[in-house]
Amino acid sequence: MHEKPIRIVARVVSRTDKTGELRSVLIALVAPTRRETGCLCYDLLQNQSDPTDFTFVEEWESNTALESHLNSDHLKAAAGRFPELLAEELDIRRYDTIE
Amino acid sequence: MHEKPIRIVARVVSRTDKTGELRSVLIALVAPTRRETGCLCYDLLQNQSDPTDFTFVEEWESNTALESHLNSDHLKAAAGRFPELLAEELDIRRYDTIE
Repeated sequence: MHEKPIRIVARVVSRTDKTGELRSVLIALVAPTRRETGCLCYDLLQNQSDPTDFTFVEEWESNTALESHLNSDHLKAAAGRFPELLAEELDIRRYDTIE
Repeated sequence: MHEKPIRIVARVVSRTDKTGELRSVLIALVAPTRRETGCLCYDLLQNQSDPTDFTFVEEWESNTALESHLNSDHLKAAAGRFPELLAEELDIRRYDTIE
């Protein structure tokens, strides 16, 4: 069965004194994630007016590929650091492309 | 002077009874915006679990290009409809690409 691509916008908000540390943890995710099967886009952004707002803009070939990413060792390792680094709950939203 | 590209994540939240109408207004923005000078990406997404959450993922060549878009006739026409269609304040965030 052909699955449609999934777009993700994931916001990761840092504690104000942990911005540099979180930034390093998130940058380390990019290369291994881009090597994953079915990863079409995985870009890490930082808000120009609020450096605690990091946002991933992602595209995955299928739900299967996304689920595999969510269970990857590199993502689990990063998520293990989140309780000490994040100011808010991780906000992951799944989207369809309209246009 | 060379300006660096700007990434935008813009969330547009519909009133629950206006989702179809807002969707049409937003779709109508895509073609003319993609024809604007300096528009590198302008994708319209809809949240898979919350159809009132529309999100634009954008990339602009420069701040100048973005400001020109914000003053475009097609964006002003859409924004004129927002008071009757939106449930929340428009949330436009500007980002740098880290990776």
